[in-house]
Amino acid sequence: MNHFTSFEDVEHPQKLIRQVIELKNNPLFSERGKQKTVGLIFFNPSLRTRLSTQKAALNLGMDVIVLNINKDSWKVEFEDGTVMNGDTQEHIKDTVKVISSYCDILGVRSFATLKDRREDYEERVLNNFLTYSSVPVISLESATLHPLQSLTDMATIAASGITRPKVVLSWAPHPKALPQAVANSFLQWTPAIDADVVLAHPEGYELSDTFAGNISVTHNQEEAFAGADFIYAKNWSSYTSYGETPAVDGDWTITAGKMELTNRAQFMHCLPIRRNVVASDSVIDRSLVYRQAKNREFAAQAVLHNLMETL
Amino acid sequence: MNHFTSFEDVEHPQKLIRQVIELKNNPLFSERGKQKTVGLIFFNPSLRTRLSTQKAALNLGMDVIVLNINKDSWKVEFEDGTVMNGDTQEHIKDTVKVISSYCDILGVRSFATLKDRREDYEERVLNNFLTYSSVPVISLESATLHPLQSLTDMATIAASGITRPKVVLSWAPHPKALPQAVANSFLQWTPAIDADVVLAHPEGYELSDTFAGNISVTHNQEEAFAGADFIYAKNWSSYTSYGETPAVDGDWTITAGKMELTNRAQFMHCLPIRRNVVASDSVIDRSLVYRQAKNREFAAQAVLHNLMETL
Amino acid sequence: MNHFTSFEDVEHPQKLIRQVIELKNNPLFSERGKQKTVGLIFFNPSLRTRLSTQKAALNLGMDVIVLNINKDSWKVEFEDGTVMNGDTQEHIKDTVKVISSYCDILGVRSFATLKDRREDYEERVLNNFLTYSSVPVISLESATLHPLQSLTDMATIAASGITRPKVVLSWAPHPKALPQAVANSFLQWTPAIDADVVLAHPEGYELSDTFAGNISVTHNQEEAFAGADFIYAKNWSSYTSYGETPAVDGDWTITAGKMELTNRAQFMHCLPIRRNVVASDSVIDRSLVYRQAKNREFAAQAVLHNLMETL
Repeated sequence: MNHFTSFEDVEHPQKLIRQVIELKNNPLFSERGKQKTVGLIFFNPSLRTRLSTQKAALNLGMDVIVLNINKDSWKVEFEDGTVMNGDTQEHIKDTVKVISSYCDILGVRSFATLKDRREDYEERVLNNFLTYSSVPVISLESATLHPLQSLTDMATIAASGITRPKVVLSWAPHPKALPQAVANSFLQWTPAIDADVVLAHPEGYELSDTFAGNISVTHNQEEAFAGADFIYAKNWSSYTSYGETPAVDGDWTITAGKMELTNRAQFMHCLPIRRNVVASDSVIDRSLVYRQAKNREFAAQAVLHNLMETL
Repeated sequence: MNHFTSFEDVEHPQKLIRQVIELKNNPLFSERGKQKTVGLIFFNPSLRTRLSTQKAALNLGMDVIVLNINKDSWKVEFEDGTVMNGDTQEHIKDTVKVISSYCDILGVRSFATLKDRREDYEERVLNNFLTYSSVPVISLESATLHPLQSLTDMATIAASGITRPKVVLSWAPHPKALPQAVANSFLQWTPAIDADVVLAHPEGYELSDTFAGNISVTHNQEEAFAGADFIYAKNWSSYTSYGETPAVDGDWTITAGKMELTNRAQFMHCLPIRRNVVASDSVIDRSLVYRQAKNREFAAQAVLHNLMETL
Repeated sequence: MNHFTSFEDVEHPQKLIRQVIELKNNPLFSERGKQKTVGLIFFNPSLRTRLSTQKAALNLGMDVIVLNINKDSWKVEFEDGTVMNGDTQEHIKDTVKVISSYCDILGVRSFATLKDRREDYEERVLNNFLTYSSVPVISLESATLHPLQSLTDMATIAASGITRPKVVLSWAPHPKALPQAVANSFLQWTPAIDADVVLAHPEGYELSDTFAGNISVTHNQEEAFAGADFIYAKNWSSYTSYGETPAVDGDWTITAGKMELTNRAQFMHCLPIRRNVVASDSVIDRSLVYRQAKNREFAAQAVLHNLMETL
């Protein structure tokens, strides 16, 4: 594994998932990362990813440098060949070459803008990091994927020990337009576990065929919930009418009543969650969401450990 | 000691004060905190508390993760049961459960809003941390108390070796309305030292009986200063007309002239201080304020050390 | 060396430059800085300086505390004797005395305001740190000098092994008014290397005689480039019409065509660089700029190492 930015970067995803579960069962401190520095670069806010990745690095004895790039540093230019006489102060090429020269591993978070689909799905920020970094790159969530979250989620599901669970990824309401990254990434990773995956969303919220092409899809949330072992809730804005939030028939909020349709399913969400919008308090309070959050530490630790093998 | 958020959390305050003085006399580095992480969560600005607590943790070999929560992360919701379709992005319950899962000790700073007395004195933010944190909580100043400051102040006074000193807590002017936290906390801690405590403030600036009920109060600043060994200056806004700043008769700025009324008293303040408003330059420049600031490091170190005993 | 804020602080600059080159050739990790804390205080944004100094400190086993002082902490007052009833919250004297009490070495970055030449050239912020800090101070760029950058630049030039190179410091265009700090500092340090130094800038952009007094100056950029071994580009605003940007005849952007006038010169810049304004893409992409940036780490490490000798 040379980078960790997508399911496709991982040669042995099942093995990686097992490593996360092993760390969860036996948290491990080591000096493996001594005199190694991980740089965590944030274009966008972060709580879990920021803290869990720091903690994972510290568990490995690594040094951590955190940078809120637009606040602490200079405004970044992404266009090539531009005459930079506007308000951007440094070209991404220069930024990444320089930062990576001080680090052994580089993490970057940069969200979709939801304005231009082609631009978001080209993953311009992430790909600039991949192009210009001299060290391995970890995605701390990119415009279209969130692999640390999905690795965590697969490990959380696999650790349950349920044989071929029915896993429902259900769209849920949200007051703001959100990227498709978590949903895309979740679907991209499900082949790594033995599960029956169903995608439930209102019309107009179809995901890209790249991720949902082989997945069974329904617009009937209640039908999807029947017999489910895991309900994974997430909001996303439209991929087809890109970034828009078309009107939705019926109430997609996940309630205790809907959970009763399932096979005593466990509720999952990546957090932060809008309580009583995405799901009701009672659903969240009896859920796996905190276990998922804690497992983020072990996922990050497994990934950092594997990337260090290549140094 | 399971938490450190108030004088009432401390079983043996005199012993804790002695530990601070011992650290002051013999600063100590240890590996006691190796592979332990303290998370410092700031809802409000901080200089001394931020730096001294970091330094204290480093002295103990701990790892430190600092988060300016509203800037680096998500806007926090405090109401229970809310339908979160407004601008708050994550419920405090989820925030605290998640953050504490990555830490061994959790510090939090959150000031009073001075809008609603009941809300401030209920210590909603701090109590959410106490309720939902899975690890010991340290107050880095809450709405109504600042125990790390008060522990420091008691240690600074006790280290002077003066037998039963006269200690005056004097209100002083300030251009902005400030919380009562430092004053409340100071009075709450004075029983831990053998001192004659006098509280001097203008009419309208009475503190809560919870803290000032057993303290001798005067509205005559000069009378209070007579024979004093320590003058502790602090501004606060009204507790009775909550958060307001009623007009004050006379000039309460602490000057060299007023200090001459004392028994060569030493001047104390928690900093930051508005020079020539709270006290004149000449008073501040011959004061204990920097010794107090440095003692913050030893107070934090003693507290962290004691909390680690419970891990 | 008691501080590192100017060329004049360094007793043996050649020796220091050699140490930087040695670190570059043999990067060194040590435990020399164990239980030592460096505080890095930023009044202004920073990328390279922030990250390279952190990395250098970590290489030495030091603990690092970073503070964006105006965002994380309190607004700082610089006037002495002021009645602080405005919007500044803490006097620089108090800030520095307190911060330095928690640190073993203190770094500070504070740019010129370009409003008042006397104020900027008096280096008020830096000098307050020097006056009130109880520990050695490192400039992370001050109003008029940037010694870590210049030490780096001298080491980068010296490491080339070219005998008595011709080094041209050339003004170049920029959309905003910038300080003279990098240019001043570069000229101040050139006596430490054996080089033929030429300063090229448009009329109206004369630097202070303090730094440029002994340097050969031309207003003809192309003439300056003839036979040059190093072209060091930098924008600065006017020193004489202080902070202004008088109109410039001709195009001072550094292009591949102009580089052909040189003795196959290597292009240098401190970054961040406005591409296709200061210099064209093709010039930057075949330059020493990333080597310079990486050498910042070794310069900071050499300086920290030397300052620790005094502790």
